[in-house]
Order: sequence, then C-alpha cells, then structure tokens
Amino acid sequence: MSKFGRWPEDVGVTKKMGEEACLKAIEDAGISPKQIEAAYVGNMGIMAPHVQGPLVGNLILERVGRGGIPVTRIEGGCASSALAFREAYMAISAGFYDVAIVLGVEKMLVGDAQTRLKSMIMGSDLELEGVMGITFPGVFGMMATRRMAKVGTTREQMALVAVKNHGNALYNPYAHLPMKLTVEEVLNSRPIAYPLTLYECCPMSDGAAAVILASEDVAKKVTDTPIYVLASAQTSGSLEPDFDYIVLKSSLIAAKKAYEIAGVEPKDVDFAEVHDCFSIAEIAHYEELGFCGIGEGGKLIEEGETEIGGRIPVNPSGGLLGRGHPVGATGAAQVCEVVWQLRGEAGKRQVAGAEIGLTHTMGNFSMGDAGHCVVQIFKRGD
Amino acid sequence: MSKFGRWPEDVGVTKKMGEEACLKAIEDAGISPKQIEAAYVGNMGIMAPHVQGPLVGNLILERVGRGGIPVTRIEGGCASSALAFREAYMAISAGFYDVAIVLGVEKMLVGDAQTRLKSMIMGSDLELEGVMGITFPGVFGMMATRRMAKVGTTREQMALVAVKNHGNALYNPYAHLPMKLTVEEVLNSRPIAYPLTLYECCPMSDGAAAVILASEDVAKKVTDTPIYVLASAQTSGSLEPDFDYIVLKSSLIAAKKAYEIAGVEPKDVDFAEVHDCFSIAEIAHYEELGFCGIGEGGKLIEEGETEIGGRIPVNPSGGLLGRGHPVGATGAAQVCEVVWQLRGEAGKRQVAGAEIGLTHTMGNFSMGDAGHCVVQIFKRGD
Repeated sequence: MSKFGRWPEDVGVTKKMGEEACLKAIEDAGISPKQIEAAYVGNMGIMAPHVQGPLVGNLILERVGRGGIPVTRIEGGCASSALAFREAYMAISAGFYDVAIVLGVEKMLVGDAQTRLKSMIMGSDLELEGVMGITFPGVFGMMATRRMAKVGTTREQMALVAVKNHGNALYNPYAHLPMKLTVEEVLNSRPIAYPLTLYECCPMSDGAAAVILASEDVAKKVTDTPIYVLASAQTSGSLEPDFDYIVLKSSLIAAKKAYEIAGVEPKDVDFAEVHDCFSIAEIAHYEELGFCGIGEGGKLIEEGETEIGGRIPVNPSGGLLGRGHPVGATGAAQVCEVVWQLRGEAGKRQVAGAEIGLTHTMGNFSMGDAGHCVVQIFKRGD
Repeated sequence: MSKFGRWPEDVGVTKKMGEEACLKAIEDAGISPKQIEAAYVGNMGIMAPHVQGPLVGNLILERVGRGGIPVTRIEGGCASSALAFREAYMAISAGFYDVAIVLGVEKMLVGDAQTRLKSMIMGSDLELEGVMGITFPGVFGMMATRRMAKVGTTREQMALVAVKNHGNALYNPYAHLPMKLTVEEVLNSRPIAYPLTLYECCPMSDGAAAVILASEDVAKKVTDTPIYVLASAQTSGSLEPDFDYIVLKSSLIAAKKAYEIAGVEPKDVDFAEVHDCFSIAEIAHYEELGFCGIGEGGKLIEEGETEIGGRIPVNPSGGLLGRGHPVGATGAAQVCEVVWQLRGEAGKRQVAGAEIGLTHTMGNFSMGDAGHCVVQIFKRGD
C-alpha cells in the first residue's frame, strides 16, 4: 500500500501512488516483476479525470517495468479493486495466468468538497436519483433513521463504530485518519446528514494498494505462508419492493454465497474487513454477514465484540472511516489487511491467532442497495 | 445490436440503447433471461458522463429483468467490450458461470466536436501526451506519413479502405455511415489530420451491442449453430525505442498469441473484423494479422483481396468507418458480425462459406501504440 491520505496534486501523482503500491507488493511477494502475466486495475477515475481513468493502469504498469501485458481496468465505484481482484482470481483459476497483480488506485482530493460530493453521486442513477439531489451521506442517513425506528439501533451504538475504527487506525501506519475519540466527541462533531456526524462519514482519500495473486503451484514456491482464497462472491443491488431495507440485500446474498462456496460459517471467521463508508453501514454489515442476528448489530458493537480482542473483530485496519477511502483502492487495501493479519504481521492491531479472514466491499448505490457487493473469504495456508 | 448512429439526447437514452441490444441478444440466443448469471459491460463513459459511467450496466440489466446478478464494468476505451467479452469468456471457461451476457454501450454524440475530441484524448497519457496537444487523428496521421515514407503506402490505397468500408456498410442495417464513395471523393473530402481526410476517420456514434456467451453444454442445448471461441489474446502497448512503428506491436503480439492458442494460421481465417478507426490503421492491421507481409498492406487492398469476395474479406460489416464507432460498443459489435457471418445470416454482405472469423480491437493509445489490443478467433460449430 501507499500511505492513504492527501497526496500533493502534482503531475504524475496517481502514477507515483500506483507505482509505490505495485513495487511494495512485488517485493513482499518475493517474485520477479517478469513473472507477472496480467494486471487488473480498479480505478473509479471520476474525481480527478486529468490524472487517472482510461489508461492509468497501463501507465503505472509501464513504470513498474511490465508494460505490454494485459492490463484491464475495472470500474465498480468503491468496489473497483474488489471486482478487479475477483477477475484476477477467476482468470488464474481458469489457468489463463499463473501470476497477476491487482492494483487499486485513486486520487480524490482535488477541487472543493461540494464538487467532489457531486462527482461521487455518478455512482447512482444520475438521471433519476442524482437529479433528485440524493447524496451518499443522505442515503446512509436514511438507513440510520430507518434502523433507529425499526430495530432500535441507537446513536451511541453508531458513534461507537467511529470510535473503534478511528482508534484501530492509530496502529495502522497507512491510515488517513487515526484518532482517539470518545462517543461524545463523535456525537458532537459537525452534522453531515442526519443523524450522521463528521466522524461517522469516511473521508475522501488519495492512495493505492496492490496484491499479487498466483496459482497454488507458484505461490508455494515463493512463500511458506501462502494465503488462500476460499471464496469470492459478487452480487448487484436490485429493486425489491417487498424487502424491508433494514440491511442490504446485495450483502446478505453475497455473504450467503461466499460462505457456501468456502464451506465455512460466520462463526468460523476470525475477523473481517467490511465496507464502513458510514458508521451505520458497519452495523448493518454485522447482520448481513451473520456475525449476529438481524437487528442485533448495535448490541454487538456495544458489547465490544467487534473490537480487536472481541469475538469477531471488524475493521482492525481502521476500515474506511479510519484507514481512509480512496475509492478504487479500498478493495485491494482490505485484502492487504487480511494478508497481514493472517500472516501475523499486523503489529499492535493484530487479531491473535487469525486463520480465516473476510472482506466485504460495496460499490455505487442505487435503488436502495449497493450497486456491487463482493464478499471474499481467505485462509492462512497450513 | 441497436442501430448505430445518432440517438436523441433524451433522459434514459443509454439505458434504452443497452436494453434494446440485450433483449435482441437474448431473443437471438433462445435462452431465458433467468439463465444469465453474470454481465460484463464495456463502456468508456467519458463523453456523456450524465447518462453512463459507473452504474450504467446495472441500470440496464435491471431493465432487462436481471438485476441482482454480478455486473462488472470494464473500461478499456475503444476496446471496452472486447475486454468485457474476454473476461466473460475466462469466467465461463473457469466454470464460474454457464451463461453470461456481454454488453457494449456508448453515448458519444453530445456537445461539440472539439469537446468530444478533447474527451477522447483521455485515453492517452493526458499529463504528457494530452497536454502536448496530441489527438487520435493526429496519431494516425503520423502513422500514415511514416508508412508513406518508409514502405510506400499510398494515399489512394488508404482511400480504398474508406471506399470499401463505407460501401460494405450499405448492406448493414445497423450501420451509421453507409456510403457509396469513390477514391476521388475520399481524397477530396475535408482534411482532418494530414494526410487523413474526413471519410478516412471513423465517426463518433451512439449505439449498443450485446452477445450471449455460454458453456459448450448450454450452447448445444439452445442452438444447432453454436459459434466457438477458439482464442482470445490481449496485450498492451509499451514503449519500445527500437521498434520501427510501421505497424503496431501490441497487435502483432496479440495476433501471434491468438493464432498459437487457436492452432490456426492467418491463411485459415475466412474474414476479419478489425479496428479501422482510421483508413491507415486497417492497412497496418492486414500486416499485423499476417494477411500479407509487412509493408504489403497497401497492395492487398489495391488488389481487392480484402473486399467481400476477395481472398480475405476485412470488415464486411463496414467496420468502424462504415458501421460507426460507439467506442464501448465496438468490440461486442464485431463479435455480432462474426456470429452472423459464421451462421450465414449476413445477407448481401455475407462472406461465402465462412467457417473461421477473427476480431481485432484496440483501445486507447499511448507511447506510439494501442493501450489495449484484443485478438479473438471464432469458429462455426460442426
């Protein structure tokens, strides 16, 4: 990973972030760049189109010394590099490649907040929802009030997510917003979209993250600690008039599929990196992922079960709230955290004895649900 | 396919084009929409970001009645849906899906020509090449003058490509620019980037094209005339100081790989749909694809060998020049033409007895070469 945060708006900034992440991933994997046969690049590219978009992956791979190989850009909003990871995983499974690199990269911090917020909403149905003035904080604000009314999720429970994730980020050297906060500080921070406050909304960040995927044969040659992909499941949101919208259906189904494919149950998962774009989202994800019953997510955080050291630590990295959210890079960054945790290399934020980790990534949002949801399950090699 | 050309700039235009192509593909394939397990959507999304981009694939699939399934947007400039096709092909090969839909869609005709030209150059290295004022017509103008100087390609030979492709488009009901032209008319049309004239430059078009891919088992159940994918090869352009740039290296290598994978030789190919974004490009592609020797492409068109009825018909559909070029849709449209030709359903533009067809698609352009090149080989089932 590159550091997540604010990178200077220099010529070539996206290329520099991407190159840094790729070179670190290559070094960490112990492979030669020449072994990389394909690249999958997640980049939304909307916020700063002058420094990213169509050709950004090619230009970065050229700098890394691997121009010429297939470079495929996947755009799925905030899930871009989760989708990219999944494509690389399928292509390697099919035997088309032995080694691929997945890169997520995004430059977001340009222009003013209003322009950036307006750009982000291109990940909805701009012609219908966009013109009605909806924004992503607005969407999740509505989810929060609905859950407060229907299942009794409280403001304090939501604030605890922000306290935990900004706090976990204190131990993540790549994090954008490491902060020691109290519930009161969260509740009293600037209102963004009722009831969500500033610290409950993930920041826009610049950054890059990269992952090397390899076939089992190659992986076993280069490392004694391979991390296996047990499952990768993808869904889309879809209009569902009868659904209750207490949680997200795309997540519910993706999680169910991933558990089936992996042959594991929620109780087997040692920790998870989930898409906490807003505090309320993480609470809903607890329920969608089966870490507790529907409507019980608030209680789970209240009882400390999702803290590092709890029954099911969630977002030990700091998540989107604490680590930051350069949209195209988030999916790959979640996989980086899973790898570090499963290898026991996560330092002060280590989940003790972690053997199975899960990532959950969402991208775009329309019709009351995430445009894309990807749930992936990973296991430490024996 | 939808009709390629100018679609009205109404709310929902991209959704309508995409829906039309998807529904036609589903009907043609004789499957039930419910059989579709995944969608891969090629869309560049730059020219009219208010009606396409991040969520366009999801919104179209929702209209088609297949919301909820994995929908993955692939952005590779003018090769977007060729890359999308390749991802679908690999995922089905790996057994992740039995049936997938590949959709290419693009709305381009908005704003003025200058703004559109400026948008397109985002498919280069905007920070270096873009600021130097390069445009795609400029790039291919340079290729033309270089080939005129080095291998003697003539203006008349280039003009013949425009005559042939606009002419073939007369028999394609989906074509944007069907025209009966003479060499003189082409040479005397408005200069665009020396030596290229108006009729030698592909138009910007609106349109959509869709393809249903299935595993062999499923395909055999729904059709007596399955078309097989023999090979799909992808490369990227890369800086190559020693290369002579008479042809494009990304195409040369992709073609070589595709022939190897398919186990066929250039002489076995009955016709090809190639990326004639400019007249000169098609002549270079003849050589890259091995239909003649390097430097002999001009002679090949002069001798009529690439006309329908010639030794190796190229772009019987009209190609990008005649059928039009809604960038995200072109790769899928090329596959549509291959399917119709191999089934013997191409009417007055039918290549007699065609058994093996090839597609060649390029996307973006930087460092003297295409950003992406995809060469795919298809065969009629026995």
